[in-house]
Formats: sequence, structure tokens, C-alpha cells
Amino acid sequence: MAVLSMLGIIDAKPKVGYFYLGQYHASIGTSHFEKMTVSEIMGIPLTVHQKDSVYDVIVHIFMEDAGCAFILDDDDFLCGVVSRKDLLKISIGGGDLSKMPIGMVMTRMPHVTTVLENESLFAAADKLVSRKVDSLPVVRHDKQYPEKFKVIGKLSKTILASLFLEIRDY
Amino acid sequence: MAVLSMLGIIDAKPKVGYFYLGQYHASIGTSHFEKMTVSEIMGIPLTVHQKDSVYDVIVHIFMEDAGCAFILDDDDFLCGVVSRKDLLKISIGGGDLSKMPIGMVMTRMPHVTTVLENESLFAAADKLVSRKVDSLPVVRHDKQYPEKFKVIGKLSKTILASLFLEIRDY
Repeated sequence: MAVLSMLGIIDAKPKVGYFYLGQYHASIGTSHFEKMTVSEIMGIPLTVHQKDSVYDVIVHIFMEDAGCAFILDDDDFLCGVVSRKDLLKISIGGGDLSKMPIGMVMTRMPHVTTVLENESLFAAADKLVSRKVDSLPVVRHDKQYPEKFKVIGKLSKTILASLFLEIRDY
Repeated sequence: MAVLSMLGIIDAKPKVGYFYLGQYHASIGTSHFEKMTVSEIMGIPLTVHQKDSVYDVIVHIFMEDAGCAFILDDDDFLCGVVSRKDLLKISIGGGDLSKMPIGMVMTRMPHVTTVLENESLFAAADKLVSRKVDSLPVVRHDKQYPEKFKVIGKLSKTILASLFLEIRDY
């Protein structure tokens, strides 16, 4: 229960580093959405390393009120994703979460759905809805290793829900 | 780990009783969204009782791939809400989840944000985004006890994200 009160404290902190960028412009007409790319509306991602413990990742998730974390390998390339659902599953399974690396429980590449920064908003939203995930990593191919990805943002259902509200203004 | 494999099996089941109703009509123009009420787009809610164990609620959440559960009292009136985040918090806190009633860990009325079935879609979406929750219970006042609510649906960010995709068709 010490964990709970600790999390209570962490919860009360300002949610730094996790906010909605909202760089699009209102009053340009609904058709504007069609021209929008992911990079215009993506949010700041929560990234952790595959050797970080499950416990530490859960603390990060609570600190930043994130729905999921994107996992990086030793060279900072995307190697997996973990959702609140995955973390809940592992938490009720027992075991010492502070000694379990997140790499053991994450969904691994290439089973992770990603979007490129220059993909159209609707194509990306379609992916998000059809794959039934809460959040997608927005990625960029590495110049040196074109088969590897750098994480540069995230596209979440929260962002889409906020965008939906913008329809009112048209 | 037996729990994990069990949940793995449950996960693979068809997600019965939890789907998107989508009763709205396409090709009527974007302004149609403005006339829409919550009852036209709400989904089927996951409800449990306050005496159900935390463990059982987690199993239900996985079975129906729900983001949260709405909690009913002995007379089937809404008395609370519990999210995946709440469940994750209690899971890492230790304790026997199968002996802990969900009523102990839920967010209680009147601290639960609700929407009425005849509220406008945008007013409800605004609530969802501004309160930073993933899902709201759609409720109806009871005839006999007007201060109490029956749960008749849910409005989730998933539904709004799906709706956002419909803009394409206009």
C-alpha cells in the first residue's frame, strides 16, 4: 500500500512531457483534415528502455498519465510497445515487477503497428481504430539503418477525440 | 502465471457484448453531427456489482476488452466507475484481489462524470476530453428515485475516434 500512496503523490504532479500539440489550424474547412499529416497532430511519446523494470515503466505511465509506453533498444530504436492492459495482465500474474525487464512482457517488433510522420491523418486514424489500440508510435526511418525506426511522436485516441471536437468550429 | 495463460485464453474469445452500435447515418453532412445525441452513438456498457471482487472485474475487463467498468449497487443503480488505471494501481499494491470488493477501489458517485442519453454528442465529447477519461456512463434518471441513475450505455474515446473517421465520407 506504500506503493499506492506513492503513486497518489506522483499522480498529483503536473503531467509534464505529455500533452496534446494541436498544431493544426481551425476555420480552414473540414476538407483540411484530409490534407493533414500525422506530424501535424501527433503528441509527445513516452519512451522507456527494454532493460527498465516493469515496475519503473508502471511508475512512468502513472507519472505522465500515459496509456502506453514505447520501448527502445540499446541504440534507441523502437523495439516494442506495452499498454496499460499488458501491464495489468503482468501485475496480477505475481512475481517481482521490479526485477522483471519490460522487454520480457512487451509486444515486439515487427508485431507493432506504426505510422510514419508523413502519413495522412485519416490513414493513420483508420489504423488506430481497426487495430483496436489506444495509441500508435509515430516513427521515422533511420538514415543509416533504413529498416529501423526512431520514435518521434504518438497518435492516440485522445488526440482523435480532441480533433473530433474541432468539427464544431466549421 | 496460470492467470496469464488463462487470460490469454479469455482474450482469444470473441468479444461478445462489447461493440460499437453506430446507429448514425452517413452522407447527411457534417452538420448532422451537431444534431446527434448520445443515444445515437453510445456503445454497450460493461457493468458489475460493487460486491464483485477486484479479480473478477479484471477478468471481465479482459473478456470484453473494455477500458473500464461501471459499478452498480444492490438495486442496480450506478454507484461508481473503475478504470484500467485504477485496477493497475490496486494490482501492484499487493493483497488478495479475489477477496477485495470492487466497491473498495472504485471512484464513487457523485465524483463520477455521467452523460444523459439526450445530451448532444458534442457536449458529451467535450466532457470526455476535458475530464480526461476514456469512457463515460450514459445514464437515465430513475422514475421512482429521480436522484438515482440507471446505466444504459457508454460513450468512449474509441467511439469518438470511429466517428472521426466518418468525416471522410462528407
